[in-house]
Amino acid sequence: MIDLAIVGAGPAALSAAIYAARAGLKVQVFEKGNIGGTLPEIARIENYPGFIGGGSELAEKFKAQTIELGAEISYGECTKVESGSLIIDDEKVEARAILIATGSAPKKLDIEGVTVPVSYCAICDGALYKGKRVAVVGGGNSAIQESAYLAEFASEVVILSRSSVKANQSSVEKLGSNVTVKENAEINAEVLNQFDGVFVFIGKVPATDFLPAELLDEKGFIKTENYQTALPGVFAAGDVRADTIKQVVTAAADGAAAALRIIDVLGQK
Amino acid sequence: MIDLAIVGAGPAALSAAIYAARAGLKVQVFEKGNIGGTLPEIARIENYPGFIGGGSELAEKFKAQTIELGAEISYGECTKVESGSLIIDDEKVEARAILIATGSAPKKLDIEGVTVPVSYCAICDGALYKGKRVAVVGGGNSAIQESAYLAEFASEVVILSRSSVKANQSSVEKLGSNVTVKENAEINAEVLNQFDGVFVFIGKVPATDFLPAELLDEKGFIKTENYQTALPGVFAAGDVRADTIKQVVTAAADGAAAALRIIDVLGQK
Repeated sequence: MIDLAIVGAGPAALSAAIYAARAGLKVQVFEKGNIGGTLPEIARIENYPGFIGGGSELAEKFKAQTIELGAEISYGECTKVESGSLIIDDEKVEARAILIATGSAPKKLDIEGVTVPVSYCAICDGALYKGKRVAVVGGGNSAIQESAYLAEFASEVVILSRSSVKANQSSVEKLGSNVTVKENAEINAEVLNQFDGVFVFIGKVPATDFLPAELLDEKGFIKTENYQTALPGVFAAGDVRADTIKQVVTAAADGAAAALRIIDVLGQK
Repeated sequence: MIDLAIVGAGPAALSAAIYAARAGLKVQVFEKGNIGGTLPEIARIENYPGFIGGGSELAEKFKAQTIELGAEISYGECTKVESGSLIIDDEKVEARAILIATGSAPKKLDIEGVTVPVSYCAICDGALYKGKRVAVVGGGNSAIQESAYLAEFASEVVILSRSSVKANQSSVEKLGSNVTVKENAEINAEVLNQFDGVFVFIGKVPATDFLPAELLDEKGFIKTENYQTALPGVFAAGDVRADTIKQVVTAAADGAAAALRIIDVLGQK
């Protein structure tokens, strides 16, 4: 039997896998999408200590280390979690402990009538807009950073922020001359349809729709006490957990701490 | 004036410097010893997500990134901290905010009559024991990992643990044939003097002897509330802070979170 099944393969999940595998646990990671979570979608990471570069490169490092230390990574979608077992691609998998580290997904643009393509990932779709005009919706760090990346392809990038821009000064200063920032902007279909495409970075929502409501708070994040959820033997870590800071290094630390807690709990049985 | 003065240059300190510098703050790091804190003394790091290798290599990455993002690192010893200023090498330095991230130092062996050399750093002194017999005092992960490193030089390594060994299974399994583990060992001068040298890995104590007692708990760690110490404008992060997990990734995350708190506080003034 698996000692620890981990749902998700982002920074928190793989950090937990690294810690648990090093402690001698049999660890299996299940992921339905990207290995590395949202890392491969981040054009450039500067604030993960010890690493500056592309998100996909950091994701590859996390993955290689996880495998080197003896954890297994499988593709598969989790549709149900109970104490001691989970359903992956319609099959039941038993595990002594389960860690939910599914992170978050982009919040969708809720505007009707937009007829131009809408994307939530600059690194996935940016190259399609070579020499074209794109709008970026959002005013946080992600919006600014992704705009800098889009500006390498697009002839013009217009950042539309509903309120004032809330981003690091250094990121804003690095924006090129083909990027314009419009604060307190009116954002509707008429405005957006004037561009060749729209990129949206307005926040994240937790990826918890496969979990029972009693595990979640009012915003859909997982409630925990010392990483333990309301289901015995089911733990949570990273961005999907309530009251966490949404940064790569804090998610990785959260995964490590959750793994240390799980190692402790399993050792006592 | 400096916006943020950071005392210490370990993972928490440099992570905080990276975050604060990216947010546009003028950041100065003061360190009296190693850049990278205890990292350069760790032979091999496997559990910092995204990196496997020598501690000095990871320290170099942290340092290069900190400088690249615009923070300054100076050598200097801090002897006093007040709200708004600190004493570095007998000179007063003013700063809008101060972060204490001095980490911890090795706990000393408290046995009289040991006449052979005693070291607290395998990577510093291990090569001096080529073909010789060394004792390692300790039974935790550090003792086991450092013994693996010492075994590359020494002809024989005997790990003396006062109680049972509390280390990761994978680390213990990787020990070579010239390493012996003695649990529940009697450890006194007579036993230790039979070896050519003694390495001690029995834990850490916080590096806080330059701070006023009202900032500290009974074990000497800094008490904080949302990273703020008892002195207004003076914050703490990393291993030196009470109730933290002593891991590289958790210290780095703690530094990042403290910096985000400081950025927020300074922005409100």
